Amino acid sequence: MPIVQIHLIEGRTVEQKRALVRKVTDAVCESVNVTPEHVKIILSDMARHDYAIGGVLKMDESK
Amino acid sequence: MPIVQIHLIEGRTVEQKRALVRKVTDAVCESVNVTPEHVKIILSDMARHDYAIGGVLKMDESK
Amino acid sequence: MPIVQIHLIEGRTVEQKRALVRKVTDAVCESVNVTPEHVKIILSDMARHDYAIGGVLKMDESK
Amino acid sequence: MPIVQIHLIEGRTVEQKRALVRKVTDAVCESVNVTPEHVKIILSDMARHDYAIGGVLKMDESK
Amino acid sequence: MPIVQIHLIEGRTVEQKRALVRKVTDAVCESVNVTPEHVKIILSDMARHDYAIGGVLKMDESK
Amino acid sequence: MPIVQIHLIEGRTVEQKRALVRKVTDAVCESVNVTPEHVKIILSDMARHDYAIGGVLKMDESK
Repeated sequence: MPIVQIHLIEGRTVEQKRALVRKVTDAVCESVNVTPEHVKIILSDMARHDYAIGGVLKMDESK
Repeated sequence: MPIVQIHLIEGRTVEQKRALVRKVTDAVCESVNVTPEHVKIILSDMARHDYAIGGVLKMDESK
Repeated sequence: MPIVQIHLIEGRTVEQKRALVRKVTDAVCESVNVTPEHVKIILSDMARHDYAIGGVLKMDESK
Repeated sequence: MPIVQIHLIEGRTVEQKRALVRKVTDAVCESVNVTPEHVKIILSDMARHDYAIGGVLKMDESK
Repeated sequence: MPIVQIHLIEGRTVEQKRALVRKVTDAVCESVNVTPEHVKIILSDMARHDYAIGGVLKMDESK
Repeated sequence: MPIVQIHLIEGRTVEQKRALVRKVTDAVCESVNVTPEHVKIILSDMARHDYAIGGVLKMDESK
């Protein structure tokens, strides 16, 4: 019954998300001995004005 | 002081959300002995490309 | 596929939690047209030194 | 390594968010003895039809 | 900068958690093109009286 | 109505948490123009076997 939430900076394609949920599901199943249908994954996009490290919004990062 | 977060597949109407928060609030109050003004609810819509079961995005499910 | 997380101040009995998940599940099913087996609920207890309103820990509240 | 998530009613400007992440980062660093680069902050906007107190959606509040 | 939170039923060993975070990190890196040091993972154990499907606590499930 | 959740590595004293919630509440109020009683903060401790960066549990980090 693992429930996984992944916060990502916005901009990933559906193709990347499709690969992400498949590979993360495999990783969970191999590690904690569950079957895939019990793994739920929520993807949450973060806009660049909604994520900060060190007190600086992603949109304001130099480089 | 219960704080409730509900992740839902996108597409519910405001009318459904209005009923949802009223009924869930009642359910919480009856069960754990709090008054309604202490119940906060956050609704979070999930796009069909942002939720997966069994490693498959909701948008890719064969019905 | 609703996923519900409920943060509660610690101290509820298992009997209260049992009622809580049953009633909240019913409330969700009636409101957004899903069947019960699709409703997952995570309960998260908060210690009184881990929750604050107005900048004051629950454990420090007068009355 | 603190990870902070802040749910806010929608409508804050980028300028307000910029101040918010800077000041919250400072507050965390002063209180729990970490350096700023270890503080991550996720901001999550809530629409007025996605937040409720007392069983009433924010959009339906009188006043 | 992906931030991953995984809710698991309690009872996994540290060895299983060690494998889990390594494999999930690899899965994220391969899928969305980040380097490992940017992947943070929070594991959250759920007691069997704190997780429900279909309105029934995990502890009450008839196997 | 901001709701703040802060994940911290375990080991902070109550005194540190008391300072943390007071200072973070002040930071939120100054930045987004709310009054303190509307700011709720949830603190969530993470054990050193429940947090990973770069695929390595905190408990396994060299130095």
